[in-house]
Amino acid sequence: MEANGLAKYLQISREIIARIRNGDLQPGTKVPSENEIIATYGVSNTTARKALQQIELQGYAQRVKGKGTFVRNQDVVRSATRILSFTENMRQAGLEPATRVLHTDKVPPGFSLVVNGRRYSIAGPVYKVHRLRFGDGVPMLLETRYISAALCPGITDLDLSCSLYRIYEEEYQLHLSRIDQMLRSIILDSGSMHFFDLSETTPGFYIEAVTFAGKGTVLELEKSIYRGDKYEFAVSATA
Amino acid sequence: MEANGLAKYLQISREIIARIRNGDLQPGTKVPSENEIIATYGVSNTTARKALQQIELQGYAQRVKGKGTFVRNQDVVRSATRILSFTENMRQAGLEPATRVLHTDKVPPGFSLVVNGRRYSIAGPVYKVHRLRFGDGVPMLLETRYISAALCPGITDLDLSCSLYRIYEEEYQLHLSRIDQMLRSIILDSGSMHFFDLSETTPGFYIEAVTFAGKGTVLELEKSIYRGDKYEFAVSATA
Repeated sequence: MEANGLAKYLQISREIIARIRNGDLQPGTKVPSENEIIATYGVSNTTARKALQQIELQGYAQRVKGKGTFVRNQDVVRSATRILSFTENMRQAGLEPATRVLHTDKVPPGFSLVVNGRRYSIAGPVYKVHRLRFGDGVPMLLETRYISAALCPGITDLDLSCSLYRIYEEEYQLHLSRIDQMLRSIILDSGSMHFFDLSETTPGFYIEAVTFAGKGTVLELEKSIYRGDKYEFAVSATA
Repeated sequence: MEANGLAKYLQISREIIARIRNGDLQPGTKVPSENEIIATYGVSNTTARKALQQIELQGYAQRVKGKGTFVRNQDVVRSATRILSFTENMRQAGLEPATRVLHTDKVPPGFSLVVNGRRYSIAGPVYKVHRLRFGDGVPMLLETRYISAALCPGITDLDLSCSLYRIYEEEYQLHLSRIDQMLRSIILDSGSMHFFDLSETTPGFYIEAVTFAGKGTVLELEKSIYRGDKYEFAVSATA
């Protein structure tokens, strides 16, 4: 341990991560190799290896067997303060959106969800729609939407492999006025890792949301899991 | 594997997590024991144990040796769309705020940080303030603030074990107008785990932010790590 309380490998990984974050090391380029780290910092190969592992663990780089460790592609940035469909967000990020409907169902009246300490219920029966969303063929987001059947009768008979927000607006003439969301940071459970085709421990965002139409009618409740190795959320705070 | 693609222990853990989230199982009460799960779902003790582990892994419950598994206390909810000091946020949550200044420093001119794809620099020299923040004695947040020395001359000579926002406003008559933040979900590295006194794999939020004073002057840049097992962020999206 050094005077600043950090093990050497952490000091090295933080320095390299800082270079990635400030753009000095660009996505797709190699991070310094084990040998380069040994030469630059005068450390053992164990320390160099641990530094590289740490950079990978923190999601900044990806090892490609026999080729080296590369700076990972930038995350998809998602604005959390603008109503924005997954489809639009993927297009902003230059990725081709796709959606696989996993399951649809009708659940009896009485469904509710607590968001930010308030319980929200949907009046009447509810459609449950479980979908996996892709960007350029890569699974990005696993979502369960609970939709008011009173406001969107027959929605599960439509093609749901596109933006639900667009369907609400175009098919049902609903105006989305606000989405209240709670963001949690989680470690993906094995169920989600299966859908995302991941085998390593990966962070994620667990988001619960309530979407209002017009002057405060609950249109849908949502529970989603976003891959933490793919997403960043942008939020502006004001006074 | 069942028809819906989920292993039995995941189905069970999700059901119990749903009961925690909807308030049916309150913080501090016990979640069903291994034996109760075996009796209710007709599963093996391995499956019951894995279901309980999953609930713990997802941060919804905590095992207390020899006593059982208890629903964890609610997270601190932090609004990400309102300018809010840590101190105020802790008081909202009913926790006593405290701050330990770990390190202060002066860094040469030229410091910059990329937030949401834009590089922000602070004109002139910069004070670096590294602090650990506590709620009811529990470490919650590890932060590094880079503060404009031109706007806040001599700030590191003041007592910094309180809200910096309050110091900006009261000592330097600065009006905080906006904070742009990027939220990432991470797995805490061993450096942060050391400060948070954690030994288990724990998720976290890594937040980079730029704080503006008045009409868009960069007052400070920030890099913070929030414990993911303690925090939830609330965000409202509008059209």
